[in-house]
Amino acid sequence: MHTRTVFVISDGTGITAETFGTALMSQFDITPRFVRLPFVDTVDKAHQALRQINHTAEVEGKKPIVFTTLVSPEAMALLKSQCKGLLMDMFGTFVQPLEDELALKSQHRVGRFSDISQSKEYLGRIEAINYTIAHDDGQTHRDLSGADVILVGVSRSGKTPTSLYLAMQFGLKVANYPLIPEDFERRKLPPALEPIRKKLFGLTIDPQRLSEIRNERRPDSRYASLQNCRYEVAEAEAMMRRAGVPWLSSTHKSIEEISTTVLQLVLPQHLNSGASH
Amino acid sequence: MHTRTVFVISDGTGITAETFGTALMSQFDITPRFVRLPFVDTVDKAHQALRQINHTAEVEGKKPIVFTTLVSPEAMALLKSQCKGLLMDMFGTFVQPLEDELALKSQHRVGRFSDISQSKEYLGRIEAINYTIAHDDGQTHRDLSGADVILVGVSRSGKTPTSLYLAMQFGLKVANYPLIPEDFERRKLPPALEPIRKKLFGLTIDPQRLSEIRNERRPDSRYASLQNCRYEVAEAEAMMRRAGVPWLSSTHKSIEEISTTVLQLVLPQHLNSGASH
Repeated sequence: MHTRTVFVISDGTGITAETFGTALMSQFDITPRFVRLPFVDTVDKAHQALRQINHTAEVEGKKPIVFTTLVSPEAMALLKSQCKGLLMDMFGTFVQPLEDELALKSQHRVGRFSDISQSKEYLGRIEAINYTIAHDDGQTHRDLSGADVILVGVSRSGKTPTSLYLAMQFGLKVANYPLIPEDFERRKLPPALEPIRKKLFGLTIDPQRLSEIRNERRPDSRYASLQNCRYEVAEAEAMMRRAGVPWLSSTHKSIEEISTTVLQLVLPQHLNSGASH
Repeated sequence: MHTRTVFVISDGTGITAETFGTALMSQFDITPRFVRLPFVDTVDKAHQALRQINHTAEVEGKKPIVFTTLVSPEAMALLKSQCKGLLMDMFGTFVQPLEDELALKSQHRVGRFSDISQSKEYLGRIEAINYTIAHDDGQTHRDLSGADVILVGVSRSGKTPTSLYLAMQFGLKVANYPLIPEDFERRKLPPALEPIRKKLFGLTIDPQRLSEIRNERRPDSRYASLQNCRYEVAEAEAMMRRAGVPWLSSTHKSIEEISTTVLQLVLPQHLNSGASH
C-alpha cells in the first residue's frame, strides 16, 4: 500500500524529473506511488493536471508531493496559486540563481527535446546504439577499431547491458566480446582483439553469482556448474592481468555504476565534456 | 569555447544530476563545459573536489556552477563553507520541505544504487534488456506473447532504439518486428503477430527521412530509393489502420518522447506506478 502519491509534471517527457524524484523519495522510509504527467505544454493541460492533483489530495486526505519542471510562467503561476499538493519547482528553484550568476535571462524553452531528433548529438547517440547492437557478443569483427571501448569477459558477466547503457546514455560506440574456453586453452586473447588491445575493458563476476545467473538460462548444465564458472572466471582474470587489460567486478554494481567506472578508468574525457546528452 | 564550467558532484554516479543539470543549463544561451565528479563518498574526496572547483574558479576568473547531490551532511558543510562556485544543492533543497511534510527524517543514505544490483526491480530491468535484444528485428518468435509491447514498422523506422530505451528505462520486455514487402503483398500482418495483435504498437516515419537514413546504410539501392520508401510507408500505414494498430510518427521525436507516448497510448499503468527505476 502506498503511503503518498507523488506527481511529476513536465512539459516534456518528465523522465529526468521522475528519476530525480525517485532518488529523493528513496531517502524516506515510505512507499510512494508515482504518477507522471508528461507533455503538459498548455495552460489547459496544466488545468487538467491541477484537477487531478487536487482530487487526489481530497480523496487521500494528504498533500500529494508535486515535482514540476514546467518552464511556462503561466502554468507555474496556476499551480502555485491553486495546487493543494506540496509543490517542488525543480526548474524555477535553480533558474533564478543561475540568471543572477550568469547575468542572462533564461529562455523559458518548453520541451527540452523539441528539436533534438535531427541534432548531431542525438543522431550520434542513435548511431552508437546501432553500432553497439551490431557488435554485441562478438557478432562481427567489422570495424571493431571504430569502437570507443570493447568490453570483454566470460559469458553472462554483464557485458551486453553495460554496452547498451554506455551507448544510450553517453553516445559511445561499444563492442563486446566474449572470452571463451577456447581462448583459455590457447592462453591468449581472441586474435581479433590483439590489434585493439588498448581499447579493451574487462568485466568479471563472482563465480557463485555467475553460476546462479547461468542456471536460470541452462539449468544443471556443465556451462552453469559452479566448478566450470570458477574455472572460467579464474582463467579470464588471469588472462586480463597478463594482457594488462583494466577490469572490475560487476557482482555488486548497477550498470550505471559499472559504466561510470569504465569512463573513469578508460574514457575520462567523457566525464569531462560539453553537455553530451 | 565554453563560457562556463559546470561541476556535478555526487556520492553516486551523478548521472541523474548531470542529465538534470544539462536540461537546466540548456535554458541559457551559453556553452557550458560539464565536469562530472562521481563517487564523492568520503570527506576526503569532497576535499579533492573542492580543490578542483576552487582552482577552476581562480583560473577562469568566473564562479563555476556546482550541482551537488551529496547526502552526507559533513561533505555538504565543507562545500558550503569553502566552495568558490555557485552551489546548487539539488538534494538538500528538496529534502527539508519533504521532511516537514512527511513528518519523517531522511535517511541520508549515501549512494542510491548501493544495493541495487540484487534488487528485484534491477534484475527485472536486466531481464527486460536481455529479452529485448533477443527479440530485436523479429529474430525469434519464441515467447513473443511474453512481451509487454511489440513495436512494428518498416525497416529503419526507429523500432530498435525505442525498444531498448523502453527496456532500459522502464524495465519493459519489448519485441520489435519488421513489416516487409512480403507482408504488403499479402496485405496482412505477419502471421506470428496475429495472436498478439493487441500488444502491437506501430512506428512510422516520413518517407523522405527514411530514404536519407537508408541511403547512409545502402547508398543508391532500391531499398533506399524515395519511391520505394514512399511505397513501404504507405502500405505499412494502411496495414496498421486496417488492423487497428495504434501508431505514431518517429520523424521529429526523440526516443524518450516516442517511449513516453507508447506508454500513454498502450501501457498507461507504467506512467502511474510505484517507483519503477
